[in-house]
Amino acid sequence: MDSCVIPLRGGLSLVQTTDFFYPLVEDPYMMGRIACANVLSDLYAMGITDCDNMLMLLSISQKMNEEEREKIMPLMVKGFRDAAEEGGTSVTGGHTVINPWIIIGGVATVVCQPNEFIMPDNAVPGDVLVLTKPLGTQVAVNAHQWLDNPERWNKIKLVVSKEDVELAYQEAMFNMAMLNRTAAGLMHTFNAHAATDITGFGILGHAWNLAKQQRNEVSFVIHNLPIIAKMAAVSKASGRFGLLQGTSAETSGGLLICLPREQAARFCAEIKSPKYGEGHQAWIIGIVEKGNQTARIIDKPRIIEVMPRGGALHHDNSETFGNSHE
Amino acid sequence: MDSCVIPLRGGLSLVQTTDFFYPLVEDPYMMGRIACANVLSDLYAMGITDCDNMLMLLSISQKMNEEEREKIMPLMVKGFRDAAEEGGTSVTGGHTVINPWIIIGGVATVVCQPNEFIMPDNAVPGDVLVLTKPLGTQVAVNAHQWLDNPERWNKIKLVVSKEDVELAYQEAMFNMAMLNRTAAGLMHTFNAHAATDITGFGILGHAWNLAKQQRNEVSFVIHNLPIIAKMAAVSKASGRFGLLQGTSAETSGGLLICLPREQAARFCAEIKSPKYGEGHQAWIIGIVEKGNQTARIIDKPRIIEVMPRGGALHHDNSETFGNSHE
Repeated sequence: MDSCVIPLRGGLSLVQTTDFFYPLVEDPYMMGRIACANVLSDLYAMGITDCDNMLMLLSISQKMNEEEREKIMPLMVKGFRDAAEEGGTSVTGGHTVINPWIIIGGVATVVCQPNEFIMPDNAVPGDVLVLTKPLGTQVAVNAHQWLDNPERWNKIKLVVSKEDVELAYQEAMFNMAMLNRTAAGLMHTFNAHAATDITGFGILGHAWNLAKQQRNEVSFVIHNLPIIAKMAAVSKASGRFGLLQGTSAETSGGLLICLPREQAARFCAEIKSPKYGEGHQAWIIGIVEKGNQTARIIDKPRIIEVMPRGGALHHDNSETFGNSHE
Repeated sequence: MDSCVIPLRGGLSLVQTTDFFYPLVEDPYMMGRIACANVLSDLYAMGITDCDNMLMLLSISQKMNEEEREKIMPLMVKGFRDAAEEGGTSVTGGHTVINPWIIIGGVATVVCQPNEFIMPDNAVPGDVLVLTKPLGTQVAVNAHQWLDNPERWNKIKLVVSKEDVELAYQEAMFNMAMLNRTAAGLMHTFNAHAATDITGFGILGHAWNLAKQQRNEVSFVIHNLPIIAKMAAVSKASGRFGLLQGTSAETSGGLLICLPREQAARFCAEIKSPKYGEGHQAWIIGIVEKGNQTARIIDKPRIIEVMPRGGALHHDNSETFGNSHE
C-alpha cells in the first residue's frame, strides 16, 4: 500500500507515509512544491483528503556556498510549506542535515475513521481504470537537461524542437507540483474501489502492484496512455525510459483509480470543473477484467498527446476510451 | 520541543518526531539500534513510553559494492527493528534511496491522551536536574577513530591508553543504543516537571533550550558532569569538543529531567533496579533556581568519571550532588 494503516484505540486509524528524494527541476520553489505533493500523494491515493500533520526532511548540500544556501533553501522550504497549506495542513517539525546532495522530503500523518479512507483492494471485473495526470514527467525533465548536452540532444532533435521540450518541461513541472487532493475527494463521490499513485515504477509497475493487492480475481488491462505532448516520440528516439512500455519512472504522478464503469466518465468530467481550480484532467485508460492479479498494456496502446495548458490536441476525456463506457 | 504535538478530534493528541543521521560506529547492527533509540528518545523526553508506529528512513551509499550492501544494510535494518521491538513498537514502512553517504533514521508517531505525555514547561525553583546517561559519546567515538590517526593520537596519548579508548567506545556504544524508555516511565512515577533529551547541542545547549521553554521564572545551574571515564581528559588534551563547557555534541544521549528535589534521589535509585534490566544509571547534576530562562555550568563542575559496566569509580547516584537533596 502507499501508506501504512495502524489501528488505534477507539476505532481510529493512524495512516502515514514518508518519501524523500533529490531535486529534479531547477526552480527550488517548484521543487519544494513537488516534494510536498509527492508525499501527500500517498495519502490521497487512499482517498484521504485531510492531513493532520507534516514533518519536513531536508539535507543541505555541503557543496553549496553560504550564498547559494541562503538563496536556494528558503525557497525550497517555502514551496514545500505552500503546497502543504494548499493541502490544508502545515509543517510542524522535521530534521535537517548536511549531505553531499540536496534531499527534500517529508512525512504525512493523519488519524481518521475507517470510512475516511478507501482500502485499495476492492476492484471488480467491469471496473475501468482512470489516470489523473499525464505520463512522461521523467522524459520531459531529462529532455530538458539534454538541451545542454549535444550528444544526447542529437538523438532526439529530429522528433522534437527546443520549444516543444521547454513546453513539456513546464507541463511536467506543473503536473508534478499539483496535489492529487481533488482526485482523492472525488474517489468518495464516485465510489472508487481501489487506487494508487504513479511514481518510480511507472504506470505498469504501479498497476501491477495494485492488481496484486486485489481481493477479487482481477487483472488490469491498459489501452490508452495519456502522455505529455511529444514525449512519446522522445522516449522512442532516445532508446531509453520505456515510456510506451509503461516502465518509465514518474515523479509525483497522478492517481490510478479503479472506478465502476458508469461512474468513471462522470469522474473525468467532474474533475475538470472550474470549482476545483485550473488544470485538473483525467482519462479513462483501461479496464478491469477477470484474471489473476496481473497488469498489462495492450500491444499498440493509443497515445493521447496531452498538450500544454490551453492546448487542444487531445480528445475530450470522456471520449478517450472509445465506446467502452457508453 | 523534542516532538510536535497536534490536537486531534476527541481530545487525543498526535505526537511525532523524526531524526536521521550518518553512521558513527563501525558495527552496523549497533548503528541501527542507535538510530532507533535516537528517534524514540524524542518521545521518551515527553514521558511517552509507547510508540504506535515507526517508519524507517534509509539511504544506501552509492560507493558500496553489491557485497557490502548485502552484508551491511540488513544488519543495520535489523538493529533498528530490534530496538523498535524493545520499545514495544514496530516498523511498518519507510523509504530508501541511494546517496553518496549512508543515512539511517526514522519517524516515531503516537496518538495519546493528554495525561500520557508531560509538557516540558513546568520546572519550578527548588527542582533538581537529573541526567540518565553519561556524557562524552562523541569524544569517545572520535578518540576511537584516532587510534588509526597518529597525528591526532599523539595529542591525547599522554592522558589515555588504547585500552581506555576501547572501553570508552564500547561504553558510548552501549549507552547510545540504550532506550530512554525506562526513564520515560519513571518521569510519571516521580512527577517530572519537564525534560529533554541530550543530542547535538550538548548538555548546555539542550539545558538552555529547555530553560527557555519554562512557564515559570527559572534558570538551570549544572554542578556535576557525569562523563564516560577518561573522556574529560581526552576532550581537554585534544583542544576540541568543549565537553567540560557542555557544548560537545552527544548522540542518543540521556534525558535531562527536572524533578522535585525529594523525588530525584528516589528516581536515581529506582532506575538502577534490576527489574528494568542492566545498565541504567542516573545522576543529579544540578538545580533549578529562580531566574530568567537561562542555563549555565558552574565554574569548576565536579567531573564524575563513569566507569565501563561493572566499574565502581563513581559515587552512588544518590550521593553525587553533595547535600543538595538531604
